[in-house]
Amino acid sequence: MDKQKALSLVKEKLTNGRFTHTIGVMETAVRLAEKYGADVKKAELAAIFHDVAKCMPIKDLKSIMEENKLSLKLLKYNKELWHAPVGAYLTEHEYGIDDQEILQAITYHTSGHKEMNLLDKVIYVADYIEPNRSFPGVEEARELADQDLDRALLFALKNTITFLIDKEQTVYPLTVKTYNSILKQVKSQGE
Amino acid sequence: MDKQKALSLVKEKLTNGRFTHTIGVMETAVRLAEKYGADVKKAELAAIFHDVAKCMPIKDLKSIMEENKLSLKLLKYNKELWHAPVGAYLTEHEYGIDDQEILQAITYHTSGHKEMNLLDKVIYVADYIEPNRSFPGVEEARELADQDLDRALLFALKNTITFLIDKEQTVYPLTVKTYNSILKQVKSQGE
Repeated sequence: MDKQKALSLVKEKLTNGRFTHTIGVMETAVRLAEKYGADVKKAELAAIFHDVAKCMPIKDLKSIMEENKLSLKLLKYNKELWHAPVGAYLTEHEYGIDDQEILQAITYHTSGHKEMNLLDKVIYVADYIEPNRSFPGVEEARELADQDLDRALLFALKNTITFLIDKEQTVYPLTVKTYNSILKQVKSQGE
Repeated sequence: MDKQKALSLVKEKLTNGRFTHTIGVMETAVRLAEKYGADVKKAELAAIFHDVAKCMPIKDLKSIMEENKLSLKLLKYNKELWHAPVGAYLTEHEYGIDDQEILQAITYHTSGHKEMNLLDKVIYVADYIEPNRSFPGVEEARELADQDLDRALLFALKNTITFLIDKEQTVYPLTVKTYNSILKQVKSQGE
């Protein structure tokens, strides 16, 4: 699917603010993919579709997850995570994109997973640092992303977990397993 | 086993500093057990034996875990956690205490677990706040423990996880699952 077609499909499903964010993630993902050697076209498409389910009603996210047995464990955790597996499902079944790497990067763009590949990391970090993001630490995350993708990812995971704990919200255990995995990667690179 | 016998057995295995800590945990656990209605004698014995393996060489902890298939997943995580299941093992097999509640409280005194009972909570919190402890937040933890055991436990879990992340150390996923579980209990009590 070409970029303009994908953007026009996704635009229909998103608020203007969410579409602006998606453009930011797309441009950032393309830049990171070029810099670190990921597949640029896959990064572009994954970024365009990553939040396609973000503006859906929670009850619709829940029913799609239940009907299709998507990440059922997630239903016990923060609703903010649910749009990721549903987005991958819609990207495949409504928009006909069947590239497993693209679908995996969309599925895990909020939680991460234990064996993230380069494309997964590009999408996760692009989503965290795209130019419209504004939160304490985002500048540091952007600088890290220019130097070391794993370091930027570790920074994002640390911030996300400590933010949730500070706010007394549940933490999806897979996110902590992702943190442990990336921490080991970063430490082994530093040896 | 009576208290004096238990203390004399444990004293042989610990440094003076660790034995002083154990006395502090014992006195605190007895006080919390009385306050919250846990079994006082079980709390006393669990506290006395909770760190019985703490001063063992790491390689001995590891070999006891491997030989007896104790919490093998723990071997991938922080060594500081290993003395807990080994302590429970020695309490049972070297000192003949077969009370499953006491052994469970010792096994999980560093990580917690998803369905902590009152005795488990008393030992976890007593270990965290005993009078010899000195770290940022310990006074707040002590005050919470006088008001609400679950709130004190939640505070300890939050602090432990954020401390580990801040220090870029791995986090045992069971500790996060414990945090999620206690968070839900505290929130449901507040409703």
